[in-house]
Amino acid sequence: MSDRIFNFGAGPGTLPEPVLTAARRDLWNIAGSGIGIAEHSHRGKVFDAVIAEAEQDCRELAGIPDEYDVLFLQGGASMQFAMVPMNFLPEGKTADYLVTGVWSEKAVKEARAFGTVHEACSSKDRNHCYIPPADATSFSAAPVYAHFTTNNTIYGTQWHSEPVPPAGVPLIADASSDIFSRPLEIARYGMIYAGAQKNLGPSGVTLIIMRKDLVEQGAASLPTMLQYRTHAKNRSLYNTPPTFGIYMMGQVFKWIRERGGLEAMRESNEAKARIIYDYLDSSRLFRGTADREARSFMNVCFRAGSEELEKAFLAEASERGMAGLKGHRAVGGIRASIYNAMPAEGCEALVAFMREFEKAHPAG
Amino acid sequence: MSDRIFNFGAGPGTLPEPVLTAARRDLWNIAGSGIGIAEHSHRGKVFDAVIAEAEQDCRELAGIPDEYDVLFLQGGASMQFAMVPMNFLPEGKTADYLVTGVWSEKAVKEARAFGTVHEACSSKDRNHCYIPPADATSFSAAPVYAHFTTNNTIYGTQWHSEPVPPAGVPLIADASSDIFSRPLEIARYGMIYAGAQKNLGPSGVTLIIMRKDLVEQGAASLPTMLQYRTHAKNRSLYNTPPTFGIYMMGQVFKWIRERGGLEAMRESNEAKARIIYDYLDSSRLFRGTADREARSFMNVCFRAGSEELEKAFLAEASERGMAGLKGHRAVGGIRASIYNAMPAEGCEALVAFMREFEKAHPAG
Repeated sequence: MSDRIFNFGAGPGTLPEPVLTAARRDLWNIAGSGIGIAEHSHRGKVFDAVIAEAEQDCRELAGIPDEYDVLFLQGGASMQFAMVPMNFLPEGKTADYLVTGVWSEKAVKEARAFGTVHEACSSKDRNHCYIPPADATSFSAAPVYAHFTTNNTIYGTQWHSEPVPPAGVPLIADASSDIFSRPLEIARYGMIYAGAQKNLGPSGVTLIIMRKDLVEQGAASLPTMLQYRTHAKNRSLYNTPPTFGIYMMGQVFKWIRERGGLEAMRESNEAKARIIYDYLDSSRLFRGTADREARSFMNVCFRAGSEELEKAFLAEASERGMAGLKGHRAVGGIRASIYNAMPAEGCEALVAFMREFEKAHPAG
Repeated sequence: MSDRIFNFGAGPGTLPEPVLTAARRDLWNIAGSGIGIAEHSHRGKVFDAVIAEAEQDCRELAGIPDEYDVLFLQGGASMQFAMVPMNFLPEGKTADYLVTGVWSEKAVKEARAFGTVHEACSSKDRNHCYIPPADATSFSAAPVYAHFTTNNTIYGTQWHSEPVPPAGVPLIADASSDIFSRPLEIARYGMIYAGAQKNLGPSGVTLIIMRKDLVEQGAASLPTMLQYRTHAKNRSLYNTPPTFGIYMMGQVFKWIRERGGLEAMRESNEAKARIIYDYLDSSRLFRGTADREARSFMNVCFRAGSEELEKAFLAEASERGMAGLKGHRAVGGIRASIYNAMPAEGCEALVAFMREFEKAHPAG
């Protein structure tokens, strides 16, 4: 039996065990080189193969066309909140932001320092428990780009199809919390960025998928490290990249491929989420907090009658080997994050416990 | 016998084996939590202890007073080349740079985009094979700071005492390649920054030691992630930090402490370097490339008669389990990087081979 428990934390989140097993081996000595993965020169043959394979596997998994660059940067989504407008939003121009939570709001805040922000829609009126429909979204006349957050960890909501900006306007997505949990129609996007620490690997590495013509359009007067073209020209090796993080991401790509790719991930994630949502819908004690059609397949948020009961639920869950279930303070209650690496058994164990808990604490 | 070889690479460099052993254990399950170190929330108790201990151990090792912040950021020294002038060099002001190699030059290039750069000294005239003496250094009238590179990996030179800027001018050091290889007189510095990947851990995490009053003086109009105060206020947890890298750095701090601290590191590093330099000075085939008084205790650069012989040397060394010895193209020849984690046995093995090689290829 494993000494590991079910980690429902929102991120950094649980990683696939085969990836951890490979990392434990390769930290000591990778590919018979006598040197661990974290100790190899980023300009040497061993790491060169690691990053080349990671890029290739990423491209194959997501069907990324040649007109897109794939970059491995540092700083997480928070750095992208600034880098995107620094590069693409000059003073006097407008960028459109679709606001579906705190992370979208943080992106807006950084952008306002550079140019004008038009909020094309917002779900703030109901504490971001829904995704605004197309007919409640109005883009500005000529935005330089439109930015949205694909999945909102805090509120458990997710865009189930991309917003559609006016023709010719690049769509930019912060996909940190659902990247590669389902197939992506890359051609719809000008840019997708994602911190690794939910579906792709450890924190400290950010995946960027960006149309090459956008890379070229970025402001040229910025510090070298803040220009996308620097990293594109140098295949993410302008400076020393986070080599271990890139290695881990590459291992996760291989794991996804072995499991059948992004379509298989979608099926598995939807099935996992259904285990919990189905129970929520039948429960008299628990209730989901997100509007049904906006429900996330990554983060399932729910309440349990009273704060006292929720506290008891979290404490008992922890005793049973289910960790990280506390909801974000903006919503309260309980949140089960069930990223790619969470096995169905975790969701089943959670529901079994919910069932038991509800029996012990019948509602009303 | 270990399946690991001697890794003389310039960085990412070799890591202490006890640290790798701990990491392999903790990647799977840290502190009996049932969750691996890379999977823990950066806001949870387990990681909180990791980062708090890392900071505390760092402070104790280097004797860092309370008036200094200790930060764990992303982006490496290359990002600091830009963040430093962004924060402290307004247009119309001058910063002084002491230029001792390519890395200093890169720092200068980024600074020029913000304000005026005065090169207080430069070793460029002799391909950076020396450290300019104090009487060849002239500071400008009122620089906002003075910046230098403590150790120059490419040329194998090192400052053996800090340059002394005019009174009141903060001294800022890029110490990426010799941080914690010897005691530091922190009070001499306004700021010290260092990418981890030579002496402190894996790439992807940058240690910053900065006087709190400087943190406060940084420009306030910058993107949130590019202000030091953001990270200082949030104890490096404004956004998701590189948790695994910080954990590893913490493990390296503990390893240094167990070995006796920074004074013990200095003794060990000087002894290791002496093994190689002593042989170089007695050799008729090999010759060191750096001026004797500027010799680095971290990177020992030397030539071996002809490029042909050097090629043969590198190939044979590799066969004998000594990797990463190729010199940087700016100097050519051979470079042995002997950071903290390189055991004396590595230096002895290298010299034994040099001796043998010289016998087989007697000079002139």
